[in-house]
Amino acid sequence: MDLKQVIHMKGGDGKEGYANNSLLQRKVISLTRSLRDEAITDVYRNTNPESLGIADLGCSYGANTFLVIAEAIKAVEKFCQEQKQKSPEYKVFLNDLPGNDFNNVFMSFDAFKKNLISEVKNQMGPFYFFGAPGSFYDRLFPNKSLHFVHSSYSLQFLSKVPDGVHINKGNVYLNKTSPPDVLKAYIEQYKSDLSFFLKCRAEELVEGGRLVVTLIGRIGEDPIYKECCLVWDVMSMGLNDMVKEGIIKEESMSSFNIPLYYPSQAEVKKEIDTQGSFDINYLETSEVNLSELDNWDGSEFTSKKPETAKDDGYSVENCFRAVAEPMLTGHFGESVTKEAFSRFMKNAVDHMPKDKAKISNITMSLTRKP
Amino acid sequence: MDLKQVIHMKGGDGKEGYANNSLLQRKVISLTRSLRDEAITDVYRNTNPESLGIADLGCSYGANTFLVIAEAIKAVEKFCQEQKQKSPEYKVFLNDLPGNDFNNVFMSFDAFKKNLISEVKNQMGPFYFFGAPGSFYDRLFPNKSLHFVHSSYSLQFLSKVPDGVHINKGNVYLNKTSPPDVLKAYIEQYKSDLSFFLKCRAEELVEGGRLVVTLIGRIGEDPIYKECCLVWDVMSMGLNDMVKEGIIKEESMSSFNIPLYYPSQAEVKKEIDTQGSFDINYLETSEVNLSELDNWDGSEFTSKKPETAKDDGYSVENCFRAVAEPMLTGHFGESVTKEAFSRFMKNAVDHMPKDKAKISNITMSLTRKP
Repeated sequence: MDLKQVIHMKGGDGKEGYANNSLLQRKVISLTRSLRDEAITDVYRNTNPESLGIADLGCSYGANTFLVIAEAIKAVEKFCQEQKQKSPEYKVFLNDLPGNDFNNVFMSFDAFKKNLISEVKNQMGPFYFFGAPGSFYDRLFPNKSLHFVHSSYSLQFLSKVPDGVHINKGNVYLNKTSPPDVLKAYIEQYKSDLSFFLKCRAEELVEGGRLVVTLIGRIGEDPIYKECCLVWDVMSMGLNDMVKEGIIKEESMSSFNIPLYYPSQAEVKKEIDTQGSFDINYLETSEVNLSELDNWDGSEFTSKKPETAKDDGYSVENCFRAVAEPMLTGHFGESVTKEAFSRFMKNAVDHMPKDKAKISNITMSLTRKP
Repeated sequence: MDLKQVIHMKGGDGKEGYANNSLLQRKVISLTRSLRDEAITDVYRNTNPESLGIADLGCSYGANTFLVIAEAIKAVEKFCQEQKQKSPEYKVFLNDLPGNDFNNVFMSFDAFKKNLISEVKNQMGPFYFFGAPGSFYDRLFPNKSLHFVHSSYSLQFLSKVPDGVHINKGNVYLNKTSPPDVLKAYIEQYKSDLSFFLKCRAEELVEGGRLVVTLIGRIGEDPIYKECCLVWDVMSMGLNDMVKEGIIKEESMSSFNIPLYYPSQAEVKKEIDTQGSFDINYLETSEVNLSELDNWDGSEFTSKKPETAKDDGYSVENCFRAVAEPMLTGHFGESVTKEAFSRFMKNAVDHMPKDKAKISNITMSLTRKP
């Protein structure tokens, strides 16, 4: 199974597709707005480029795709207006894996650009827009070609399922029953992935360039942290029942492990320090209560709410499905996946009380060292 | 009708989809190979950049999409090897309208890159690849960011249906019965489009940058040139019959005109000279006999034939359908278009003898003036 083909959000605008289940991501993007505004204004002030390179890594598609870009450009335009200086030219790169629905992104671009121009009252700098398909666990951009890089809710994915985790019987992710070697394999994969990610970005950013990342992490130091693993435990329950009933072979269940790791803030800090290319401006962990999302109006944004964002409440199940379904389908096939989700939905009612569900976000704002 | 949404090739890998009907385009790309090799080697030698910017405009998708890029990189690598100098870093931009199937292009990229690396024997320079959705009748790239721009079989499309051609009764393109004002409107649109295209590319190319374009043109000076208009005349026949039979309303037929113009070599030269940004290195017209394509083996290429290229002979009808169907469907709807093509196929047997069918290509190689 080539992960590059299956780690992508579930397509379509239907109820279960990613485009309509990205409210959590949008909330998170709203919470880090001032951090991003500070970072891009800072790098623009310090480097004063004619052409400002901006990249969003793991852009996905749907309502959120252009949000960060719009806010970033507006922050720079505001700065230029205050300083009475000419706007730069913007080079914007939207990255995701090749399996992402880039057609959807590209077809939405004209409407986004029209909105942005109408919102930036004065003459805006010229704007060039590109799709950059590929894994961010690899070089994506030329040397020193970017000033500001953003990534939200993508870096908790690993570059691959760690080696040797097929012994993780009955689990699809880390669990208290996972053998110590499985835990070790996940941690090693996470460390080498984050370190290589930072090395690649350090090569692509100019000196003083800024990197703002939010990823799903955990609060405590124990990697078998209940809140982040729970959703996968509930998924495992149903799959294990299907093994017992002979619907799934035991080997097939054992060989299915999710390429994810939810690090702690201390683990992230250690890797940034060890890798050595970046100064840390900000590194914090915050929690989002999923139940609060139901009444959220998105008012933190100055940008128009995209027309595609239909916020009929937040469904943790649908959001999870949008992420997990392509991975399950790639491994088990369609009919098993359909049954697995049906069981997941039933088990979730008992085991995942919505009013207590929280997501821990680790947010960092870094500066490329000279 | 927004042309940006409908001028694109018919999707799918089926018999009638573009991916399998691009043999003519591939033949044309093969004929201009030495011209492109000379141009990219020339600009690389003269400007010696660390990062070489390459763009293909109107890249479409399918077997041909990566062909020009592969040949261009191989020409530079050969030059570097001969001169015993370090390879540059490659920035490659594939452009087409947002309606193009970029998902298809992006999913093929890994296989293309693997092929290319295996074919370039020595260590190749790093390679960064981007999709650039948008109309080439607009700025697409930052100032002076490109060294080599290529476009094949795209520039005969106009940016829009010319104003005032709704009086072109009974025709979908220029015909001897077209009113003089319609001819004038087509010519004016062509002139302003080509001029603006050249202005945009001149801004995007470095000094000494090279532009190689092939477009469908005509041999003689009379714009109502039979060979290039014939296919549209045959299409008009069936549509006119459908008007008579009450299947299509007369207004609907009158308001449908194809945004194309097949210029002569002299017309192209005049616009290049008038616009003034480019020196002409090469400008010639050549003819391809469509019947010759049946036995063509593609041996001019050093690159591996893409696996998607199934060459079971060439069908001018299918090739035409891949281009025309999205435009007709956008205007008339699906059922009328289906019927129109059924009539077109019948009329083509009598009015378009395959053994005499020729396409006139105008090929130019230009250099951005200092």
